[in-house]
Amino acid sequence: MLGTCLENVRNTVPLVHNITNYVTVNDVANILLACGGSPIMSDEPEDVEDITSICGGLNINIGTLNQRSIEGMFRAGAKANALGHVVLLDPVGAGASALRTNTAVELMEKIKFTVIRGNISEIKTLALGSGTTKGVDADVADAVTDANLDSAVKFVKDFAAKSGAIVAVTGAIDLVSDGTDCYVIRNGRPEMGKITGTGCQLSGMMTAFVVANPDNKLEAAAAAVCAMGLAGEIGWSRMAEGDGNSTYRNRIIDAIYNMDGATLNGGAKYELR
Amino acid sequence: MLGTCLENVRNTVPLVHNITNYVTVNDVANILLACGGSPIMSDEPEDVEDITSICGGLNINIGTLNQRSIEGMFRAGAKANALGHVVLLDPVGAGASALRTNTAVELMEKIKFTVIRGNISEIKTLALGSGTTKGVDADVADAVTDANLDSAVKFVKDFAAKSGAIVAVTGAIDLVSDGTDCYVIRNGRPEMGKITGTGCQLSGMMTAFVVANPDNKLEAAAAAVCAMGLAGEIGWSRMAEGDGNSTYRNRIIDAIYNMDGATLNGGAKYELR
Amino acid sequence: MLGTCLENVRNTVPLVHNITNYVTVNDVANILLACGGSPIMSDEPEDVEDITSICGGLNINIGTLNQRSIEGMFRAGAKANALGHVVLLDPVGAGASALRTNTAVELMEKIKFTVIRGNISEIKTLALGSGTTKGVDADVADAVTDANLDSAVKFVKDFAAKSGAIVAVTGAIDLVSDGTDCYVIRNGRPEMGKITGTGCQLSGMMTAFVVANPDNKLEAAAAAVCAMGLAGEIGWSRMAEGDGNSTYRNRIIDAIYNMDGATLNGGAKYELR
Repeated sequence: MLGTCLENVRNTVPLVHNITNYVTVNDVANILLACGGSPIMSDEPEDVEDITSICGGLNINIGTLNQRSIEGMFRAGAKANALGHVVLLDPVGAGASALRTNTAVELMEKIKFTVIRGNISEIKTLALGSGTTKGVDADVADAVTDANLDSAVKFVKDFAAKSGAIVAVTGAIDLVSDGTDCYVIRNGRPEMGKITGTGCQLSGMMTAFVVANPDNKLEAAAAAVCAMGLAGEIGWSRMAEGDGNSTYRNRIIDAIYNMDGATLNGGAKYELR
Repeated sequence: MLGTCLENVRNTVPLVHNITNYVTVNDVANILLACGGSPIMSDEPEDVEDITSICGGLNINIGTLNQRSIEGMFRAGAKANALGHVVLLDPVGAGASALRTNTAVELMEKIKFTVIRGNISEIKTLALGSGTTKGVDADVADAVTDANLDSAVKFVKDFAAKSGAIVAVTGAIDLVSDGTDCYVIRNGRPEMGKITGTGCQLSGMMTAFVVANPDNKLEAAAAAVCAMGLAGEIGWSRMAEGDGNSTYRNRIIDAIYNMDGATLNGGAKYELR
Repeated sequence: MLGTCLENVRNTVPLVHNITNYVTVNDVANILLACGGSPIMSDEPEDVEDITSICGGLNINIGTLNQRSIEGMFRAGAKANALGHVVLLDPVGAGASALRTNTAVELMEKIKFTVIRGNISEIKTLALGSGTTKGVDADVADAVTDANLDSAVKFVKDFAAKSGAIVAVTGAIDLVSDGTDCYVIRNGRPEMGKITGTGCQLSGMMTAFVVANPDNKLEAAAAAVCAMGLAGEIGWSRMAEGDGNSTYRNRIIDAIYNMDGATLNGGAKYELR
């Protein structure tokens, strides 16, 4: 059950090393604490190997990447691989610039990722070497909808099988696959797109979920997606007249803080394909 | 009408490239989303040209500048100029250090800015090559008041004419001029000064407003100033017993999120000189 | 009285230069504003000497350190020492990586610190050259408790005497000593550990308190600790059903914003040893 995956995070308090962008890093730290994990951030190449060694998982997010942090990503990733840690890639903006696309592609070549999580444009860029990313948001033309769900599921399964990673494509409909099974998830609200960094937050939280559930990684990744979407629903239900996206950000993290396994089990909306 | 400028942002969703400080960057991203724009952040020199190419505007904020990001500012600015994009300069702390003053001055020499927005001390530093900036806040002695309004309006008009940019000086009274006309704006509350980054947020939002209103840039810049000040008034009216500057920050962004053109038209307090 | 220390901050508005991590920097800035101080952030080596020269205090926090910011720390620290400014060290993660441990130790060798503030693991690392830091949180085995209070007080007094700095060890029980006297403080709530950066926030605020109270530095440091803990208590009392760590973060900063000297005097829980 998905709820057990959340409870395992709370019971084991996984320490997660994040190399992530400076835009949303505070929210990533707070949502990791909210779900029961423990965050530590470090991107200096001389620091990352020691830091990742004391952690259980590594979350690599390429937003606001720079030459120094890129070196940090490769060194941390190699160390985490050597130690058998969970490693997640969030290819923020892949397709939007040559540096981001090339960095993400090279990371995939040199590091074995446990999970890759992005929007459909970013994942298409990685999978097809193309894509039509518009900034860091997925092209509407690329959105996963009921009309193209079968082909989208096949695409995600194929990329998961080819890459050897669990692949999570998030959007209005979320898909999470290990190459064999695919969770099709319908939690969340469109207003979450008006908050910066809900995807980054999910990547941090997903790393903790997978670390805490070593024998059920696919289910753990899906549980993190459901938890984030459900938090978006719960948070929205608490919005008052005059509240907007800044308050909504707080309410979503608050909802994760207060979520227990039973709530997640009761609220998760998914099917397996 | 100012309200139309806001509606044009919501209708066109301008993508804004921000090279901005790591202190307030999350709030800049969220207020850009709140007003209807779409933010992307990048400061790595190898990344900025690609990123700015897919955007409509570039917001350069020199707070927490470093040698790498300074190079990013020049490369992004040159590319944005070549593409005819809107480019805004927020000279945070100009006058407070030689590096900041020199960087701002050199940026003005090498890049054509559409808008320059700062407090009176920062703008005086740029205009007069002097100024008495105390940290990143304007000197009280330099404040724009009713007593010195005529000379302040003349100063801003002159600097706008000389620089060829729209100049926005914000404080208790805000002045926005293109060299010919000058908006004198009286929205806002003094408590906004107790929140870090309301100026940075305004610069990000103003970039989106100007991008979305290419034929009315002066009015668009003034509309952004009025929207920010009005959001400060609306946000303050929603403060409860025990609330402070952290909640106030959220309420201001929330107020932008909920603001429509009619509200902005009804609440804007300005005169043209 | 501790309350006077807070009032002196509000009356003198000390400008504090922060070289701090990008995870919690926004909250550090906002809590400095909330308590009556004024923050400025700069970590570029070419910028820091000018910036620290116009300030009254310098807050050095080694979280998310990098080679550039480390150079900035040494240059800013040397300049602040030359000018006789208050300088605070927050050795985030000392003991968790060689770079962090070595940087903190070398900073202590080359810069005279007015105050050192950290958790017990970090301070033990500095004092003993060892420690068992787990990430950036103190090891439970190292926690200051009533059972080991006498030895903990002796340890903090000894390290303060040896280092020549006021030493503040924060946790469930906080200890603040100048080598002679030791404040034993019991404000705060355990839920504060679920918010990222309450320690970083305290370090920023403590710098302002010490700057504003040059003749009572020990009392000022203790007052900052009590204020932070009391804000945690007041903030918690305002939490509603469904609120979590993100809202709690706001409520704590809000509580500092609204705190006056009488409230601090009435709520501070401490004894002198």
